[in-house]
Amino acid sequence: MEINLFDLEKLIDRSLREDIGTGDLTTNSIVAPDATTYGYIMAKEGGVVAGLQIAEMIFCRFDPAFEFKALVRDGDRVRPGSILAEIAGRARAILAGERLALNFLQHMSGIATRTAGLVSLVEGSPARIVDTRKTTPGLRAIEKYAVKAGGGYNHRFGLYDGVLIKDNHIKVAGGIGPAVKSARLGSPHTVRIEVEVEDLAGVREALSAGADIIMLDNMAPEEMQEAVKLIAGRVLVEASGGISEGNIRAAAAAGVDLISVGALTHSVKSLDICLDLHMVKTVRN
Amino acid sequence: MEINLFDLEKLIDRSLREDIGTGDLTTNSIVAPDATTYGYIMAKEGGVVAGLQIAEMIFCRFDPAFEFKALVRDGDRVRPGSILAEIAGRARAILAGERLALNFLQHMSGIATRTAGLVSLVEGSPARIVDTRKTTPGLRAIEKYAVKAGGGYNHRFGLYDGVLIKDNHIKVAGGIGPAVKSARLGSPHTVRIEVEVEDLAGVREALSAGADIIMLDNMAPEEMQEAVKLIAGRVLVEASGGISEGNIRAAAAAGVDLISVGALTHSVKSLDICLDLHMVKTVRN
Amino acid sequence: MEINLFDLEKLIDRSLREDIGTGDLTTNSIVAPDATTYGYIMAKEGGVVAGLQIAEMIFCRFDPAFEFKALVRDGDRVRPGSILAEIAGRARAILAGERLALNFLQHMSGIATRTAGLVSLVEGSPARIVDTRKTTPGLRAIEKYAVKAGGGYNHRFGLYDGVLIKDNHIKVAGGIGPAVKSARLGSPHTVRIEVEVEDLAGVREALSAGADIIMLDNMAPEEMQEAVKLIAGRVLVEASGGISEGNIRAAAAAGVDLISVGALTHSVKSLDICLDLHMVKTVRN
Amino acid sequence: MEINLFDLEKLIDRSLREDIGTGDLTTNSIVAPDATTYGYIMAKEGGVVAGLQIAEMIFCRFDPAFEFKALVRDGDRVRPGSILAEIAGRARAILAGERLALNFLQHMSGIATRTAGLVSLVEGSPARIVDTRKTTPGLRAIEKYAVKAGGGYNHRFGLYDGVLIKDNHIKVAGGIGPAVKSARLGSPHTVRIEVEVEDLAGVREALSAGADIIMLDNMAPEEMQEAVKLIAGRVLVEASGGISEGNIRAAAAAGVDLISVGALTHSVKSLDICLDLHMVKTVRN
Amino acid sequence: MEINLFDLEKLIDRSLREDIGTGDLTTNSIVAPDATTYGYIMAKEGGVVAGLQIAEMIFCRFDPAFEFKALVRDGDRVRPGSILAEIAGRARAILAGERLALNFLQHMSGIATRTAGLVSLVEGSPARIVDTRKTTPGLRAIEKYAVKAGGGYNHRFGLYDGVLIKDNHIKVAGGIGPAVKSARLGSPHTVRIEVEVEDLAGVREALSAGADIIMLDNMAPEEMQEAVKLIAGRVLVEASGGISEGNIRAAAAAGVDLISVGALTHSVKSLDICLDLHMVKTVRN
Amino acid sequence: MEINLFDLEKLIDRSLREDIGTGDLTTNSIVAPDATTYGYIMAKEGGVVAGLQIAEMIFCRFDPAFEFKALVRDGDRVRPGSILAEIAGRARAILAGERLALNFLQHMSGIATRTAGLVSLVEGSPARIVDTRKTTPGLRAIEKYAVKAGGGYNHRFGLYDGVLIKDNHIKVAGGIGPAVKSARLGSPHTVRIEVEVEDLAGVREALSAGADIIMLDNMAPEEMQEAVKLIAGRVLVEASGGISEGNIRAAAAAGVDLISVGALTHSVKSLDICLDLHMVKTVRN
Repeated sequence: MEINLFDLEKLIDRSLREDIGTGDLTTNSIVAPDATTYGYIMAKEGGVVAGLQIAEMIFCRFDPAFEFKALVRDGDRVRPGSILAEIAGRARAILAGERLALNFLQHMSGIATRTAGLVSLVEGSPARIVDTRKTTPGLRAIEKYAVKAGGGYNHRFGLYDGVLIKDNHIKVAGGIGPAVKSARLGSPHTVRIEVEVEDLAGVREALSAGADIIMLDNMAPEEMQEAVKLIAGRVLVEASGGISEGNIRAAAAAGVDLISVGALTHSVKSLDICLDLHMVKTVRN
Repeated sequence: MEINLFDLEKLIDRSLREDIGTGDLTTNSIVAPDATTYGYIMAKEGGVVAGLQIAEMIFCRFDPAFEFKALVRDGDRVRPGSILAEIAGRARAILAGERLALNFLQHMSGIATRTAGLVSLVEGSPARIVDTRKTTPGLRAIEKYAVKAGGGYNHRFGLYDGVLIKDNHIKVAGGIGPAVKSARLGSPHTVRIEVEVEDLAGVREALSAGADIIMLDNMAPEEMQEAVKLIAGRVLVEASGGISEGNIRAAAAAGVDLISVGALTHSVKSLDICLDLHMVKTVRN
Repeated sequence: MEINLFDLEKLIDRSLREDIGTGDLTTNSIVAPDATTYGYIMAKEGGVVAGLQIAEMIFCRFDPAFEFKALVRDGDRVRPGSILAEIAGRARAILAGERLALNFLQHMSGIATRTAGLVSLVEGSPARIVDTRKTTPGLRAIEKYAVKAGGGYNHRFGLYDGVLIKDNHIKVAGGIGPAVKSARLGSPHTVRIEVEVEDLAGVREALSAGADIIMLDNMAPEEMQEAVKLIAGRVLVEASGGISEGNIRAAAAAGVDLISVGALTHSVKSLDICLDLHMVKTVRN
Repeated sequence: MEINLFDLEKLIDRSLREDIGTGDLTTNSIVAPDATTYGYIMAKEGGVVAGLQIAEMIFCRFDPAFEFKALVRDGDRVRPGSILAEIAGRARAILAGERLALNFLQHMSGIATRTAGLVSLVEGSPARIVDTRKTTPGLRAIEKYAVKAGGGYNHRFGLYDGVLIKDNHIKVAGGIGPAVKSARLGSPHTVRIEVEVEDLAGVREALSAGADIIMLDNMAPEEMQEAVKLIAGRVLVEASGGISEGNIRAAAAAGVDLISVGALTHSVKSLDICLDLHMVKTVRN
Repeated sequence: MEINLFDLEKLIDRSLREDIGTGDLTTNSIVAPDATTYGYIMAKEGGVVAGLQIAEMIFCRFDPAFEFKALVRDGDRVRPGSILAEIAGRARAILAGERLALNFLQHMSGIATRTAGLVSLVEGSPARIVDTRKTTPGLRAIEKYAVKAGGGYNHRFGLYDGVLIKDNHIKVAGGIGPAVKSARLGSPHTVRIEVEVEDLAGVREALSAGADIIMLDNMAPEEMQEAVKLIAGRVLVEASGGISEGNIRAAAAAGVDLISVGALTHSVKSLDICLDLHMVKTVRN
Repeated sequence: MEINLFDLEKLIDRSLREDIGTGDLTTNSIVAPDATTYGYIMAKEGGVVAGLQIAEMIFCRFDPAFEFKALVRDGDRVRPGSILAEIAGRARAILAGERLALNFLQHMSGIATRTAGLVSLVEGSPARIVDTRKTTPGLRAIEKYAVKAGGGYNHRFGLYDGVLIKDNHIKVAGGIGPAVKSARLGSPHTVRIEVEVEDLAGVREALSAGADIIMLDNMAPEEMQEAVKLIAGRVLVEASGGISEGNIRAAAAAGVDLISVGALTHSVKSLDICLDLHMVKTVRN
């Protein structure tokens, strides 16, 4: 997985502490420390999988010798009933880690699945589906990873690695021109300047101010087409605002380079995935 | 807010670092440190609000003198166009904190809104709507808070503060009886023992094993009714599994005490909320 | 050990930093990095042992190949002169880790030993000896573990996983009845409500308020007997306050289910345990 | 208080999280957020007080406007029934913080009281009572502070700020001479070299090796006297090992400069201190 | 200051712990807690100042009421003997914080001073002086801030917010073309692609591969001129490698847009700055 | 290495996060996860090496199977072109870790080299070269380690493990006598008391006050000689202030025991060291 491992380990730490706290009362009372068992993780509905490595890391926290045999890979499309992984190890590890592992898998696969659906809708056009900063606090890295697993692309990670001049910035700066000029001066030369505009006048202003990317905010398809014609390939064009399954084809048809979709991460329907035990074998170590 | 403030501060810290990292390139380039401005936070669709205090805390991180005047309270139902809060302070604070504040508000209000919808569906019955452990990793405290804001109740927080003997525990323990016995011995006397069962035979076993709460997992309404009759008020009864807007009335009508709904937190549709600036005034300090 | 490993590792981290800081001046000056040695850990007085795994973890922090061969297990009763463990590894690991390992072992074994003494005094009665929240700040998990090693049981872990309505809560709530009602509404259904009472009137109030557990605070044995008779098995009964070796039999004889003893953890006499080196062998790696 | 405030804040953080976790179920259910009350902290037995500032800091975490009016100061001797502090503030702050504040106060006052007792036994002699590294893991700073509050002095804080060559170091080094030489070379010139010896031969060796301090380990009073005579003021002399109320006068009479007592911190009997509410006043903010 | 305050607070925390640990033995022994004093911070040699806010934050950690009256601002050029700030507050705060405050001020002012020297050498040319990733581990944010205080500009902050394809990447990718193509696909559209080249052939390859910025590594001035002519303003040009006071004018004269200088941060000569007390006034609170 | 491993791991963590953040955009885009390669680390100028273990630890963070074969050891003097280590492992590990590993190696080797130069200048005299607290914030441990690698010795680590009474302390205390007396009372008996003086009168005062070490601050060589004569071996003597290559022989010739040099760590010129890849082999795992 391409997520920074340091941050991933910390995220898992935090999540485990949140769920397990001073210990799993039920499992610790009922299951002997050295009992082992095995089972599988299965998709109960169809979709695109993401998060298998996190699931594996969680079980291995409880049992370093845990066996997690993934049968699919992140980004794979699976059908209802598909086995995603076979697992074997300490029964305590499985029972204590199950919920958290599924919470991650279901959330990330939900994002990947919806992304893949949107990507397939614009197939054939050059437009890329990209995410936004409307992510769940604390989960941005894994949510952006899930977008890529679904065939999408990532926008800037946060406020520190890209410049996006929005409506409110323009108000404060007193216009697109001064805003772009200040941003160029104040940010590294390695970063592009993107400007959000709401109409064709804005497009013209952004072009003459020297923007590198123009974001068309909440424009109707016809207006987008005109904007794209006006820009004529000189800078990248991003469609944004209220994009969903219903209107994404029109946005792509308008000729934009990028379509950003906040709902990919702000309104996630988790993919239904379960964990079942085959049977139990208890081995004394 | 009843969330542990220590954890809330840490959550905000983490989320701010995630989004802002080494600094907001756009805002720091464009906006003078001492420029001030004011605006408002508005609901663009109707729903139940949750998370106002977190939003306020976020802006105050950037500007200790920030004014955040909430016009509604967490748990209030608002209409489209309702102003939730009027805000005033450093322009940098508003621009850098806006997205994160909205991410929290939208997510939490989304949960509160759906909870309130389910609660209203069972109005008149004694059944409580409760949450589950199917929460977003790292956000359990605020998601459980949002459930309460929507009129729901909380189940145990994690694995450490309640005993819930599920299918896989019963398999490993070799039956409901030995599982309950071990749990009673191994957990504090301050905690109730809940057992998940799938049929009436399970209900009988759980009763004779001395369970304090019985969870009816994925039962049809008629079976639930029989189970409730069998239990006859001796222990609490919880309905669980696949509950949604379509079948929750039937569950309530069956006479259960509690109805737990995973989707409250695992599949959240965020409530649409925005932040707008009125106009800009720049004051040199 | 049943303590959450994440927390245990952090506790050891903190304790090592506290003692070792920027490095063990004496050992680093005197002992070659690759010198190895071996020795043993011995009880100098009789008692019940607890904490062996923590001791092992400490030495392994300095030397991952450290050999720690425990000859007894936590909860075992040992006689003066008993060898608890044979150890072998880097001399630096033994010399730098010795004090901290012994500090844990001595403290935890002191708790286990006193607990075992009280447990033996009530042998034959059904009463369980339980701990309280009067623990050493930062060490609650390992002190509660030591209580179990000594044959005792654990009360709630903290304020978040159990409800105990005490004198001051009752004053603020304006009576036992309203206090229990509020607590029932405000806490998960998975948690029992315990009420502290000081006399038989309190017992009656608590019963009629629907308490799940009644704590008899500082009652004389005869009053406890009457309370137990009055309660008649309807709810659990806990004796508390000023219990010591001198009066614990009387409390047990009164028929209570639980006897909580703050002194188990607030006034610990450590068990005398030492570490000795057999001889030294120096091997160049 | 002379303890590093950074570390003190962290210790209080950790301790509060340990006890309160996701929130005080009882208090949050029963007490309104804005209810206020007042009361006092009282010694139920006589002794020397330590830890008042920590108690104050704990309550202020819950209520920044909390009033904590200390009537005595750390190091003061109090009688049974003495009021240590009057307190007023949010009822939730008092009820949630009470146990932790008392746990600190009782533990630290227990140490101060025992130290003061030993100090009074050697009154008139020049010997100082000092602590050891046999402290409770995580609490060394506050335990050493309590020793000073009781009239004692501190030994080195840990392994990094002083050199103490003990039996096992001497074995590994092959004698006192080479051990002292290595230590001198390997440690900053700002640190004194202390050597532990068990008999007069050891004293002679340590003197000729150039030790700055000699620790007489477990010596009988007569042997101590001879050692002191032999050393003749050239270096500091510390008595150590098995010192208690019964034999400390003899150690002091032998003429040593320092007497170190592990039991000051490894076997603490907490001082009995309680918190009571006067009455309750509820004010709506 | 434009540095993320969260990170700055953490940096100060770490640095204070490093220096002060369990407490300032000298100051705590000698100076009463409530003694106050006042003094000033003075440049002993001429240069450009940076870091005043950090110095202020350090003293305020010890004494929230500390008065730090800066007489100059970061980025100002000062002469030998210039007073940078007048200070007043607890004597303990000044004595314990002095060294750390000066360590920051001297280091950052050293960087600002050298940057300003280089900037003045290229005055009149459009070339910007920029920093590199050759910073002191842990201090990147404040070192980059100091570069700006000296009139320089910042390059990307780290590996995550910019793409710079260097020699070793090209080797691994098998050429500039495939490297740029992969980078374009794998990084957000908000980021520019920079390529390091060593000769004119490299320049041509980079241009045809579609690089956004070309870094001329260790080129002689004449070769740089040819490169600039070849590039003809189509992309940004950065000179890098071995730039110092001796050759920076030639680089600027070659017409590059940016000149990056590793020595700005990897070989810092601190600016000589001292803190003196005027006199002492002791006030009992 | 003798640095506390806990702190070293944390330092590397922090430094990696600083540089890599959410991921190395360039390397992750261009290099396959399983591609391997090999190369070497080479000194481009002569000097004394320090920091090899840190470099190794950094690469192993990215690739636990990384091979780092050091050809020299910390403290070795190398010539321009010397290979310091051969390395082999994942190409991503080398490319992402290169800069950070070199930043450490270059900085620490720079310190070791300058220290060794000063040490060689006083060869033959008994004077030790020691460091000061004028270190880079956050790097004290590794900078002090580098001083030892260069043949120097360490002064106290911070304010908590040694007493150094400076000019400002004396002002506040009202003289050397009271300052020493307070310090003796307030610090552990294991610590020596050092006093900074500026003239012979100060030396006399310090001697009669019972100082253990006298620091001669900014004295001319002749005055140092007189001071040494006056002290006559009764206590240690340290020369300090403005010591450089030009005057260090004179200081040593004056007969002092210790010479402290702030510039060792406050003005570091990094040693030029590079990393090159031999060629690339790509192996699919």
